[in-house]
Amino acid sequence: MSGQEAPQFTIVGCGLAGTLLACYLGRAGHRVDLYERRPDPRTHAQDRGRSINLALSVRGIHALRDLGLADEVLRSAILMRGRMIHSATGELTFQPYGKDDSEALYSVSRAGLNLTLVQAAARHESLRLHFGQRCTGFDVRSNAIELHDETTHQVSQLAAQIVIGADGAYSTVRSQMQKQERFSYSQEYLSHGYKELTIPAGPDGAFRLEKHALHIWPRGNFMMIALPNQDGSFTCTLFWPYEGPNSFAALRTEADVLAYFRDQFPDAVPLMPTLAQDFLHNPTGPLVTIRCQPWHLDGRAVLIGDACHAVVPFLGQGMNAAFEDCTVLSECLKQHASRWDDAFRSYEARRKENTDTLAALCVENFVEMRDKVGSKAFLLRKKLAILLHRLFPHWYLPLYTMIEFTRIPYAQALRRARKQNLIVALIAASLVLLLLFLALR
Amino acid sequence: MSGQEAPQFTIVGCGLAGTLLACYLGRAGHRVDLYERRPDPRTHAQDRGRSINLALSVRGIHALRDLGLADEVLRSAILMRGRMIHSATGELTFQPYGKDDSEALYSVSRAGLNLTLVQAAARHESLRLHFGQRCTGFDVRSNAIELHDETTHQVSQLAAQIVIGADGAYSTVRSQMQKQERFSYSQEYLSHGYKELTIPAGPDGAFRLEKHALHIWPRGNFMMIALPNQDGSFTCTLFWPYEGPNSFAALRTEADVLAYFRDQFPDAVPLMPTLAQDFLHNPTGPLVTIRCQPWHLDGRAVLIGDACHAVVPFLGQGMNAAFEDCTVLSECLKQHASRWDDAFRSYEARRKENTDTLAALCVENFVEMRDKVGSKAFLLRKKLAILLHRLFPHWYLPLYTMIEFTRIPYAQALRRARKQNLIVALIAASLVLLLLFLALR
Repeated sequence: MSGQEAPQFTIVGCGLAGTLLACYLGRAGHRVDLYERRPDPRTHAQDRGRSINLALSVRGIHALRDLGLADEVLRSAILMRGRMIHSATGELTFQPYGKDDSEALYSVSRAGLNLTLVQAAARHESLRLHFGQRCTGFDVRSNAIELHDETTHQVSQLAAQIVIGADGAYSTVRSQMQKQERFSYSQEYLSHGYKELTIPAGPDGAFRLEKHALHIWPRGNFMMIALPNQDGSFTCTLFWPYEGPNSFAALRTEADVLAYFRDQFPDAVPLMPTLAQDFLHNPTGPLVTIRCQPWHLDGRAVLIGDACHAVVPFLGQGMNAAFEDCTVLSECLKQHASRWDDAFRSYEARRKENTDTLAALCVENFVEMRDKVGSKAFLLRKKLAILLHRLFPHWYLPLYTMIEFTRIPYAQALRRARKQNLIVALIAASLVLLLLFLALR
Repeated sequence: MSGQEAPQFTIVGCGLAGTLLACYLGRAGHRVDLYERRPDPRTHAQDRGRSINLALSVRGIHALRDLGLADEVLRSAILMRGRMIHSATGELTFQPYGKDDSEALYSVSRAGLNLTLVQAAARHESLRLHFGQRCTGFDVRSNAIELHDETTHQVSQLAAQIVIGADGAYSTVRSQMQKQERFSYSQEYLSHGYKELTIPAGPDGAFRLEKHALHIWPRGNFMMIALPNQDGSFTCTLFWPYEGPNSFAALRTEADVLAYFRDQFPDAVPLMPTLAQDFLHNPTGPLVTIRCQPWHLDGRAVLIGDACHAVVPFLGQGMNAAFEDCTVLSECLKQHASRWDDAFRSYEARRKENTDTLAALCVENFVEMRDKVGSKAFLLRKKLAILLHRLFPHWYLPLYTMIEFTRIPYAQALRRARKQNLIVALIAASLVLLLLFLALR
């Protein structure tokens, strides 16, 4: 390979973040090689590894729009205008996400979106995609990656100028960076796990539940949710404790499962013909939050997406935050030209505080989704927040709105929400005092 | 070895926590084997591995008293009644820790205390101490530990009934437990490191600074502290950034060091004849917070002290919290008889929330010590807190007082402090309103 052809960037992982970043790099004229463990999605059906569908929101859409891919992706996405709450007796309550359809989420297929991004990356001449190549090592001294060919089982070493770890929560690239001195790292598991279940389409692909909603069955300590798919089916996800009296460990037989679901989710059971088998055969996935620092190794390696900040899925921001990483990293690379170290440092400085804030908010939102969304007090607060947002659209933005429907950095959004709420509380307290004063006068 | 003689507990690490727990276990009649990498402190001078002296407070003293060791330890300790603040111009301000000498810290020698504990452990017939044996592995399936003999370099495997990991922040026992599924783990490094320096004794072992104080040179982004030793010397610790304009990376020559110290610590430099050499030759240590969960593996292994919750040293609670672990674990073992799994579960439930709270408070207190202790507003708040504590000794306890001078669990102490402060703020606000109302009437 001549010097001219050697890639500047070697991306490990052709998941959603890796391929999107490749498109940004390709657009900027960089030479990039991508390596992916799985087979080429253009020629092979994708295995069911992770969640089937995802909620796409403004941060993700912005990145896709940057690259001219938003229209194509949104055409095959399903608009979700709000939450549909299913009570224990089967009553339905709809809570809109925002003031109109500009404040809504989109349910997209992970496999479909990944294929779109791979096709988009393949259109750039300076990008080369290599599938069936598992990265099994990264030598931080020589900056070489080790690749295992999944077909021939041959192992090769590849010298890289800049390695980009886009290889997910259990990143091989990060695991080697972790061996550096004073590398901060954390992996925190929730005591809950998740299991995917299915509500198939009705006759003629009819949706058996409201199509344009994210469905939630909040049950206090646990919950089930369902997102619509293009084919009329819904993918349900049960979030449940691993251990204890009501837990994955406690339900052993088909009869146990059916009895429990009929008790807890009476309106869903008739729509789930393969419930018991799915429950007993589908894997139970862990819910992990991963944080680390630094995100880069001088100007030689850098992490994006789950590899540096895996979050739990309760704000639907994992993919959106990863796409925002790509937008910011692309801006930093442009700003710092080929001073890679400066570019990566600036990227980390702009992202780290924000993804740390996001990680904490995602864990908090699990409690909100599984417990509070069912309560009257919560509904009242949500209504008040939306009212204030309508009255003062430029001043008052609910935290959820800022996270899902704006590109305000997460940490700044949290600070602004706290300030707004303090001011609202102070105004309310002053009004009470004023009334008291007038009454006593 | 006959069944009767086989030890129930195998403690890895004869540091402060391991030997103290051994004394508790020995007192309860358990058979225990202890393994330690370093040579026997009864026959060898101890190497300078970690900090030279430590602040002992109520939680630690309680554990020592439980075992009849408190009087012996306190006889060779130095009472520290408060903080002595050294300003940039060399002015001194003394801030007492509490209302009297019952609320004070003790400076103890790590080596001296370790020797006392090893001697106490050796007095129990059911305990066997093995030195010069480095634990290099722990097989979580067979519950065997691997030992490396530091003299003969032979490696042996040892089947253990229950393994107790008391092997510090970089615990080998924990590192194997970490490979279990869904093990939560975090290591967070501060961007500061620490370096130990010395103020030798004056003529005839005279103390060159106030003997009964913990000295602090707060300088905003960094600080130096000094604790007294029995021989009249002080051990100083500089907490300083690793990188940046004023950092360990920036001072390269003896002249640099002297110039910088003369500028920042003018009153200390004349007392530090070996400053420049010490600075350039002594190692720079990292400041790490370690958290993990679970702390035990069924009823077969359990962690104590830094192995499960290393904290940064800014509340002087690392050793005290480790000793409290031993007190609580000993209580749980007694309560649950030989149902080890229950005992360890109960121990973790009682400790985890508290050591998590402590870890966060220690990081926060670094900012207080290096920055706020020098300010007038801080002094005023401290004085108000001590006044409230004098006026309402049973109701109002400052957070620092609860941490250092009571055995109130750390998390409960933090909740109580927040509640107290809220009530004080509400009373103050009501008084202002009342005055306002009277004035307007």
